[in-house]
Amino acid sequence: MLEIDRIIRNALQEDIGLGDVTTLATVSPGKVVRAEFVAKEDFVLSGIDVARRVFQLLDEEVAFEKIIEDGQSVRRGEVLAWLKGEASFLLQGERVALNLLQRMSGVATLTSRFVKAVEGTGATIVDTRKTTPGLRILEKYSVRSGGGRNHRTSLYDGVLIKENHIAAAGGIATAVGRARDYAPHTLKIEVETRDLAEVGEALEAGADIILLDNMDLETLCSAVELIDGRALAEASGGVNLETVREIAETGVDLISVGAMTHSYLAADISMLFR
Amino acid sequence: MLEIDRIIRNALQEDIGLGDVTTLATVSPGKVVRAEFVAKEDFVLSGIDVARRVFQLLDEEVAFEKIIEDGQSVRRGEVLAWLKGEASFLLQGERVALNLLQRMSGVATLTSRFVKAVEGTGATIVDTRKTTPGLRILEKYSVRSGGGRNHRTSLYDGVLIKENHIAAAGGIATAVGRARDYAPHTLKIEVETRDLAEVGEALEAGADIILLDNMDLETLCSAVELIDGRALAEASGGVNLETVREIAETGVDLISVGAMTHSYLAADISMLFR
Amino acid sequence: MLEIDRIIRNALQEDIGLGDVTTLATVSPGKVVRAEFVAKEDFVLSGIDVARRVFQLLDEEVAFEKIIEDGQSVRRGEVLAWLKGEASFLLQGERVALNLLQRMSGVATLTSRFVKAVEGTGATIVDTRKTTPGLRILEKYSVRSGGGRNHRTSLYDGVLIKENHIAAAGGIATAVGRARDYAPHTLKIEVETRDLAEVGEALEAGADIILLDNMDLETLCSAVELIDGRALAEASGGVNLETVREIAETGVDLISVGAMTHSYLAADISMLFR
Amino acid sequence: MLEIDRIIRNALQEDIGLGDVTTLATVSPGKVVRAEFVAKEDFVLSGIDVARRVFQLLDEEVAFEKIIEDGQSVRRGEVLAWLKGEASFLLQGERVALNLLQRMSGVATLTSRFVKAVEGTGATIVDTRKTTPGLRILEKYSVRSGGGRNHRTSLYDGVLIKENHIAAAGGIATAVGRARDYAPHTLKIEVETRDLAEVGEALEAGADIILLDNMDLETLCSAVELIDGRALAEASGGVNLETVREIAETGVDLISVGAMTHSYLAADISMLFR
Amino acid sequence: MLEIDRIIRNALQEDIGLGDVTTLATVSPGKVVRAEFVAKEDFVLSGIDVARRVFQLLDEEVAFEKIIEDGQSVRRGEVLAWLKGEASFLLQGERVALNLLQRMSGVATLTSRFVKAVEGTGATIVDTRKTTPGLRILEKYSVRSGGGRNHRTSLYDGVLIKENHIAAAGGIATAVGRARDYAPHTLKIEVETRDLAEVGEALEAGADIILLDNMDLETLCSAVELIDGRALAEASGGVNLETVREIAETGVDLISVGAMTHSYLAADISMLFR
Amino acid sequence: MLEIDRIIRNALQEDIGLGDVTTLATVSPGKVVRAEFVAKEDFVLSGIDVARRVFQLLDEEVAFEKIIEDGQSVRRGEVLAWLKGEASFLLQGERVALNLLQRMSGVATLTSRFVKAVEGTGATIVDTRKTTPGLRILEKYSVRSGGGRNHRTSLYDGVLIKENHIAAAGGIATAVGRARDYAPHTLKIEVETRDLAEVGEALEAGADIILLDNMDLETLCSAVELIDGRALAEASGGVNLETVREIAETGVDLISVGAMTHSYLAADISMLFR
Repeated sequence: MLEIDRIIRNALQEDIGLGDVTTLATVSPGKVVRAEFVAKEDFVLSGIDVARRVFQLLDEEVAFEKIIEDGQSVRRGEVLAWLKGEASFLLQGERVALNLLQRMSGVATLTSRFVKAVEGTGATIVDTRKTTPGLRILEKYSVRSGGGRNHRTSLYDGVLIKENHIAAAGGIATAVGRARDYAPHTLKIEVETRDLAEVGEALEAGADIILLDNMDLETLCSAVELIDGRALAEASGGVNLETVREIAETGVDLISVGAMTHSYLAADISMLFR
Repeated sequence: MLEIDRIIRNALQEDIGLGDVTTLATVSPGKVVRAEFVAKEDFVLSGIDVARRVFQLLDEEVAFEKIIEDGQSVRRGEVLAWLKGEASFLLQGERVALNLLQRMSGVATLTSRFVKAVEGTGATIVDTRKTTPGLRILEKYSVRSGGGRNHRTSLYDGVLIKENHIAAAGGIATAVGRARDYAPHTLKIEVETRDLAEVGEALEAGADIILLDNMDLETLCSAVELIDGRALAEASGGVNLETVREIAETGVDLISVGAMTHSYLAADISMLFR
Repeated sequence: MLEIDRIIRNALQEDIGLGDVTTLATVSPGKVVRAEFVAKEDFVLSGIDVARRVFQLLDEEVAFEKIIEDGQSVRRGEVLAWLKGEASFLLQGERVALNLLQRMSGVATLTSRFVKAVEGTGATIVDTRKTTPGLRILEKYSVRSGGGRNHRTSLYDGVLIKENHIAAAGGIATAVGRARDYAPHTLKIEVETRDLAEVGEALEAGADIILLDNMDLETLCSAVELIDGRALAEASGGVNLETVREIAETGVDLISVGAMTHSYLAADISMLFR
Repeated sequence: MLEIDRIIRNALQEDIGLGDVTTLATVSPGKVVRAEFVAKEDFVLSGIDVARRVFQLLDEEVAFEKIIEDGQSVRRGEVLAWLKGEASFLLQGERVALNLLQRMSGVATLTSRFVKAVEGTGATIVDTRKTTPGLRILEKYSVRSGGGRNHRTSLYDGVLIKENHIAAAGGIATAVGRARDYAPHTLKIEVETRDLAEVGEALEAGADIILLDNMDLETLCSAVELIDGRALAEASGGVNLETVREIAETGVDLISVGAMTHSYLAADISMLFR
Repeated sequence: MLEIDRIIRNALQEDIGLGDVTTLATVSPGKVVRAEFVAKEDFVLSGIDVARRVFQLLDEEVAFEKIIEDGQSVRRGEVLAWLKGEASFLLQGERVALNLLQRMSGVATLTSRFVKAVEGTGATIVDTRKTTPGLRILEKYSVRSGGGRNHRTSLYDGVLIKENHIAAAGGIATAVGRARDYAPHTLKIEVETRDLAEVGEALEAGADIILLDNMDLETLCSAVELIDGRALAEASGGVNLETVREIAETGVDLISVGAMTHSYLAADISMLFR
Repeated sequence: MLEIDRIIRNALQEDIGLGDVTTLATVSPGKVVRAEFVAKEDFVLSGIDVARRVFQLLDEEVAFEKIIEDGQSVRRGEVLAWLKGEASFLLQGERVALNLLQRMSGVATLTSRFVKAVEGTGATIVDTRKTTPGLRILEKYSVRSGGGRNHRTSLYDGVLIKENHIAAAGGIATAVGRARDYAPHTLKIEVETRDLAEVGEALEAGADIILLDNMDLETLCSAVELIDGRALAEASGGVNLETVREIAETGVDLISVGAMTHSYLAADISMLFR
């Protein structure tokens, strides 16, 4: 809550700065109007409470009623929420609210397509740390709105030993050992692997999760077989809407997808004054 | 500079938080390594100095040499910059640097496609306020890296009278008059119009810039003719890579494009340790 | 609003710091009192809502009713507002509220004298960036309370090409050209000139506003004649209450005055407990 | 130091915001120039290190050599300091540095006039809390540059029991007693009095400092006599350059003057590029 | 108030960061519960309003009724306060509220033991600057809850000339003189002394308070005799619950104790859901 | 790093505020001195780099050489580090550096006693979230200096399902299921249990860690037996230096101890000027 408020205040400061010249010039204070958020295309909604919060931080008196909940699919033309308040506050908050809502819904929508693509397989779609700087908490929330799950949020709520860590430590076994000794016991240890030999080493070292990075389908299958439930198998690399189903069918437990948070398209939403 | 530092510190705080558990566990302090930023696809570079700054804020000792300048086109496989420093700092800064650099280059790349599409016409591609909350200053910079130009940065370095302002003021003439009276004389007055009648009113009212919103090509042509150089003509709405050339050919001076900053795809860039 | 709150919180922090020792020692919590803001001399009021906000940020329960509106002339002895609330909050907010209100009214009062001095001429009095660091938004507001108009607020909501920019660019024409290419099209281009030759160059280069800096009355007249409505003519330098009328009568459109925000006297206002 | 840096960063942020459009457009990066701060009138200098710090925070490479020290009187035409660095940084820091330096020197200059006016008497000129919100630490420093002394800085490094505190406590004796019980023993207790009877009560109550508020000269004399060295005698109210000498000659120990920090005129200083 | 809010927000940010995963996963929004703060041992309460504020900052709807006031002794098993609100907010605020309340009560409890130990003597127990970084304002408040008094809060609301200042100034007399010249006249001058000779010098120099540092009981007695009421006598060093009574009986006015804020044990308090 | 700097700046601001009056008055700028940090009792050192950073943030020129490393046991009289720099900076940083270093070493020292007490058993001593608000990152570091290990740092890098979460979810199985569905897969699931029945349920539900809260030794033994390596067994409640060995000998894997961070005594350290 505090964190989201901080994001919104920062965005308002960035957009309004020392004052909305146009609105101050043309709109008389006190004028109350009514407006609606309307979908201009089909998408999965996310961020409606964040949009509401934008207006509340500008003026506590603004009324905001949401009609659609986050996570729901909306159709072009549907009204997502209506709001009522001083025109000057609605105009000042409009762009920030839309900038957040459109991006969050964009993340949810793209996520839902990945989730749908693997339906029926045992694979779970998870996000990455490839999020927009400053908006991670929101984008990770939107991944959940779209039916996905979250990978670690930051560098300290998960251990992920990558190639460079392994090189620095002098091998998978040492790296896993050091992590086991150092990290809170509440964190699982994940190891990035590039081939079956490394998968074997990681298993041996007792990794809880094995990241199968950029492997072809055949190798993925062998890796899953090799792991055989002794660790979670997570695929990453080369994942897109064309490949994700095949990857899921190799039997991996998780597929991490960077695109959901770094290459989504903003959902088309307007705020219309009534 | 101060503003960009603030963005980077915020991003580092978000990603590293109370510590990079994996690196702290596996990498011995003092170990110096060398790494490179490498293009994994073709794109227009933007943000290389921002990437450098990420590492400098983590540790002043990190050396960073850029090979490609912002605004240049790079080919898959090209090295963009190399850096040298303590492994732990390189690992901690990697994700934040890439998250920024990939997004900024994504904006520049998409912008350059719009700019190329209108080449030879008199139209200039400009951005909008539909930027990522918290990153506007960077995205607006990247629009310039891609050959585009900037519209106003925020609500107070430009006057843009929209439909709702006109409604609140009671007409275009009144709204423009109020803005002329209120706004600093250093700002031009722009008016959003939906049809030729409004274009006429805006001209009459002495608008410096006329926004032609969501007009079809024919109306755009008529509007340009009507304006006849007495104000800048700016088209917006329904602009994409398929339509932008035709719009440009109507003779408008400027075309504002939201997609460049709200629906770009992150450029594919890796940081490889050598 | 957010920006003004930030200024007030900062001022309260500066003044109260770790606690108002005297009030904590002598005043029992819960004691409700009534107080008034009273003018101790004649002046133009500005900042009454800012004064109110000081108390609201200390305690939401404080009632504050303004009697005079910003921009009105008040006479010695007039009550500007009354307030009612816990004595401890009134005592803690008193100095900060007065420090702001007295300065803002000082700016408005001095501005109103400049405005009156040019009454009937076509000249508009505008401010400068010579404002008190940290309080620009308030002082610019108070200039408007006093009947003046605002020049650009900061370095990015206006282009003003000065001598050093011209020298760096290698001439007025190049400097204006570069600015036209770089700056958002929503900003006018202003050029500082020192003599008629430079005025001519600036006009040629297509400047929107021409700053006539430190010119004598005769030169100002010639400059206005030369410009002949093709750009806004703005006089600056050597402007004071003795000279401003003569300057206005040269026919310039605008006169910018630094003194209004850097050399005003605080209006004499007291907060009296009843 | 940290506090002054905060003030400067805030001022730079306020002035530069998202970028100095004019300088970015017209001045090529890397161009090194030399400039001087020059006095345009006679005054007492204060703030030269603050001015230097402005440029250092913009760019560590800027060289700044001060020629005159704070507290010295300067004559019109004297060079105060010279600096050398990238033109773009000098141009971006110019206004903020001047806005601070001119105000601080204004405070020092006015203070020095009050100090000179009481020369030879035993009275010390001290400031008040009537300082510019956000700049107190600088203005208090400048009072010392001008030869004055500081009263308490904020509400917690001094106890000053005023009329309203006395009323709330139910009398001078109770108020002083409560303050003695509550305040750190490192703070003296000062009591505001309006007539001789109150002076007597304050003495009786053991006040360390007695504020003689708005008393005429005769009463001041009697008060000084009554106090007779048992407490510090501080005069306030109705103090200006015409009255201050007479007040000093009544034998008071201290005279507190609000005008030094709320109604000074900015010293005229220019930054000239060479 | 603003300062305490800042401390709490900081603590919440530290503990909750990007979200309370457990609560978000298991507790449905909207579920209202009731809870109590219960003493698990005997202690002196301090910080109950701070605990309340923690929940108010999380959600304005949380009801919080305190049963015991700060400064009161509580018995194991007593209910200190009850609260009612959404389970998710109570769970998120629980640890921060307890971390503050338990520490503040720990300070009050230890202070009360020192205060009781010197009961009947003329000595007052005061704290030091040996407080927990970031929590000074709260710990100093808790010293008062426990019946102690506050020494200066920071380096600028009191003058304390220590050995190193004396060495730098070249002697006690010079150091006191400089301080008298420089410091606001609202501050007393305290001098640290190590033997009777220095006490004599300090007296001569006109010190208001003399700190008798690490002296044995005999020397303390002689010092008190030597001072003879001409300055406040403050003992420090080697003060603990075993020695404090004897020190008090030497006749010193004040005893400053670092342990009260640097070596207290947290009071045992639980928050129980009903 | 950024986080620790923030803590230090905050502490310096709290202590120095608007200036160290005593030092400014008595110590001439430019005077360079040498000082040492000296142990006044035996303890385990922690925080020496934090102490160094305090001085670096005040003045980059201060030299600081550490002699003892964090985690080492020191004897009374040993020199921990020496430093050299301007006397004024050393005096201003002294208290903040000591306040941090003494507390951090206090945590390390107490931790090392718990660690020693369980030596030879299989139990690991871990900390809790019962840390000082604002200093968690430092105290958790000091636990490691003392040979302990860290539990989760905050509410989002670990899942710990407590009684109230279980009640809200309607049972252990549901709660664990929801957490498994919601939390990142990088986090283990820990469940708090009060008796063997709950231990059984938690095992059944697939908990990764089982918290055995406030159980007597016998129950602990049975619980360990029941768990039989299928989950980590963590004891908590009623842990002190007297009981910890017996608890460890029940065979639990981990013992979490709040006292290490909420009831430590500051180590006695002085900074002596040479």
